[in-house]
Amino acid sequence: MSQNPTNPTRRGFLAGAAMAGGAAVAGRVHAQAAPDPAITELQPWNQYLGPGVDAAPYGMPSPHEAHVIRRNVPWLTADSVSSVNFTPLHELEGIITPNGLAFERHHAGVADIDPAEYRLMINGMVDTPLVFTLADLARFPRENRTYFLECAANGGMEWRGAQLNGCQFTHGMIHNVVYTGVPLRLLLEEAGVQPGALWVLPEGADASAMTRSVPLEKALDDCLVATHMNGERLRPEQGYPVRLVVPGWEGNMWVKWLRRIEVGDQPWQHREETSKYTDLLESGDARRFTWVMDAKSVITNPSPQAPITHGPGPTVITGVAWSGRGTIPRVDVSLDGGMNWHTARMSGPSLDKSMHRFYYEFDWDGAPLLLQSRAMDSTGYVQPTKEQLRHFRGENSIYHNNGIQTWAIDSDGRAENVEVG
Amino acid sequence: MSQNPTNPTRRGFLAGAAMAGGAAVAGRVHAQAAPDPAITELQPWNQYLGPGVDAAPYGMPSPHEAHVIRRNVPWLTADSVSSVNFTPLHELEGIITPNGLAFERHHAGVADIDPAEYRLMINGMVDTPLVFTLADLARFPRENRTYFLECAANGGMEWRGAQLNGCQFTHGMIHNVVYTGVPLRLLLEEAGVQPGALWVLPEGADASAMTRSVPLEKALDDCLVATHMNGERLRPEQGYPVRLVVPGWEGNMWVKWLRRIEVGDQPWQHREETSKYTDLLESGDARRFTWVMDAKSVITNPSPQAPITHGPGPTVITGVAWSGRGTIPRVDVSLDGGMNWHTARMSGPSLDKSMHRFYYEFDWDGAPLLLQSRAMDSTGYVQPTKEQLRHFRGENSIYHNNGIQTWAIDSDGRAENVEVG
Repeated sequence: MSQNPTNPTRRGFLAGAAMAGGAAVAGRVHAQAAPDPAITELQPWNQYLGPGVDAAPYGMPSPHEAHVIRRNVPWLTADSVSSVNFTPLHELEGIITPNGLAFERHHAGVADIDPAEYRLMINGMVDTPLVFTLADLARFPRENRTYFLECAANGGMEWRGAQLNGCQFTHGMIHNVVYTGVPLRLLLEEAGVQPGALWVLPEGADASAMTRSVPLEKALDDCLVATHMNGERLRPEQGYPVRLVVPGWEGNMWVKWLRRIEVGDQPWQHREETSKYTDLLESGDARRFTWVMDAKSVITNPSPQAPITHGPGPTVITGVAWSGRGTIPRVDVSLDGGMNWHTARMSGPSLDKSMHRFYYEFDWDGAPLLLQSRAMDSTGYVQPTKEQLRHFRGENSIYHNNGIQTWAIDSDGRAENVEVG
Repeated sequence: MSQNPTNPTRRGFLAGAAMAGGAAVAGRVHAQAAPDPAITELQPWNQYLGPGVDAAPYGMPSPHEAHVIRRNVPWLTADSVSSVNFTPLHELEGIITPNGLAFERHHAGVADIDPAEYRLMINGMVDTPLVFTLADLARFPRENRTYFLECAANGGMEWRGAQLNGCQFTHGMIHNVVYTGVPLRLLLEEAGVQPGALWVLPEGADASAMTRSVPLEKALDDCLVATHMNGERLRPEQGYPVRLVVPGWEGNMWVKWLRRIEVGDQPWQHREETSKYTDLLESGDARRFTWVMDAKSVITNPSPQAPITHGPGPTVITGVAWSGRGTIPRVDVSLDGGMNWHTARMSGPSLDKSMHRFYYEFDWDGAPLLLQSRAMDSTGYVQPTKEQLRHFRGENSIYHNNGIQTWAIDSDGRAENVEVG
């Protein structure tokens, strides 16, 4: 796969800039003209930090980046044990979420599991109920795949209108990492699924004993019993030592601290698929088993936590897009609240059910903007407006808000979360 | 891009296993048969850790993984300020190196740069010498690409025979991350490269003032002026806030804490390309400007730091492969020191000049093994034996050892670094 599309995209950038605003061509970035070769006088950096290479057996970010952290919204939940913090999307680049910044959602805190004591049981409608140790799992063929995990409630606060001022809070219940794991299919084959089985029930070892009913068809298709994320062991808050990966489906189903998978012939109708994770419509009916996360996107820069600080001239808009149904071949960006759309430039690998990164470069004239992005996925589905979503689903919902986000940019470059009609 | 090749590869696994050893088919993994549904009695994990989701604004690995760290070899260098530590390849999976575990090599410690004070100058044979701030760089179009970075001296201790007992030390001067950066070409175009220019000299802001001569053709092709790795800002020890990315070429050229790029018409013949980073041949001549890292691979599991502990039966061999000249379409694995070869299964994205992950699953009969892997890259080049390398390059070299590695596995599963004839 070629990773170097800059020649064609540079031409695209110039053409896009000419189409986008008043300026006929992209302006130069106003770097300062420098005396030559006086640079060494400008930069007194010839020094070193600390005691040398032993300092960081496990390295950490620069102290200058101490503001780049997961954040929660303390009033959102009654108790920090059942709460959430958010990925700082506005500080990130590319498509990989660093493990230390991947959002957390717990229903009853983090389970503490000694890997030597870990066991995974498969039981129910199987020929031989089995218990696997972590060492047993390591003897099965494993796969490496990159997937987004999005909480079904990501953006839930925004159903009734713009509320949270920053993409970390409106869209930050998502992360995208490379998983290594054993296809669940191989473990089910080892136990022997009996005729008539149609569902599986993964169960977590946390204090909430998280369970969800998953169709056997999905379990046999692309689910992974994952042990690693981004090359290293799963983090404690992400299910150490084992979590289920359910590609493209809502995060609640990706059971962490996985200790058991029961095989059955009907769904279990547990709390997390009846009172929670359903979408209450205006009619009083509830949509249920709405597992797939539809196509969605958000502009991460500029955004309320990351204003434009450089004034008019060449400006880079960037953001992320994803779909639980495939890849994202195209994202469009609007500068005027959805009246006109410009095709963004994608950069980075385009992988199935993985985050995609887009850019739109233009020459900003300093006038206010209404920024939007609109994702189109590989099935042809187009991300809807919030108005379209509410037309079909009413205003009672918390889950599955994949509507188009608007940031209002003022002439000073400040950004605000707004809705447009 | 489809990420789900498990159906065909499972068939490949079984076929491969049948070919590999004495066993006709792969045996079952001996998971323990379990009483049903008594699992909850086996696993008293229904508890939570710490004060909830606020505990880790920037998360860290499980305390159970405290052994997974970069390690150095204290006797290797005279001073820790000019030293190296090594990526724990035997503990990693997939193709991404976590930022906290990416090896470090410093010639004079880590520079401490305030991002607000950061400047990058382009000078020399340009129409307009320019100085860029970090904010200036963020106004240029940027790209996301995944590349390995390998120190030219990776495996250097092994030229004269097997010495270091663990792939962390024999092969751990490599990491593979997703970079986000501005194509260097765009910055050079902004300054205006003058006719006759053929080389650039990137210079670091560390106390060693690292410099290397890079052909202008490479600078205009795929080099990046990178600000992010794996989604977040560069780590201090990897050049925060800016490093040069020179895809496929030796790590010494990827200048960290980049403060200046001079454009000229000939190479500068600085220390790092004359007395160092050259390959002294038997004749007394030295190979110079040997920039490209040729195809290479290593089995990471099992290896001396990660023996086989489960006894005979289904066994997964895994490792990594890379080439500075393209992708790795194929890796072969030998169980008998190179007499017979079996094609490994690749899993994960195959990206240009990026690390690749391979697996070979077989039914181990418990007899001693001589494990080897052999990478083939997209140019058709095949990784040589150490004997072949020494035939052409003698035994004086330190750099560019891409010879085939052998691990001897005894009947207890212990692994040792050995050479075979």
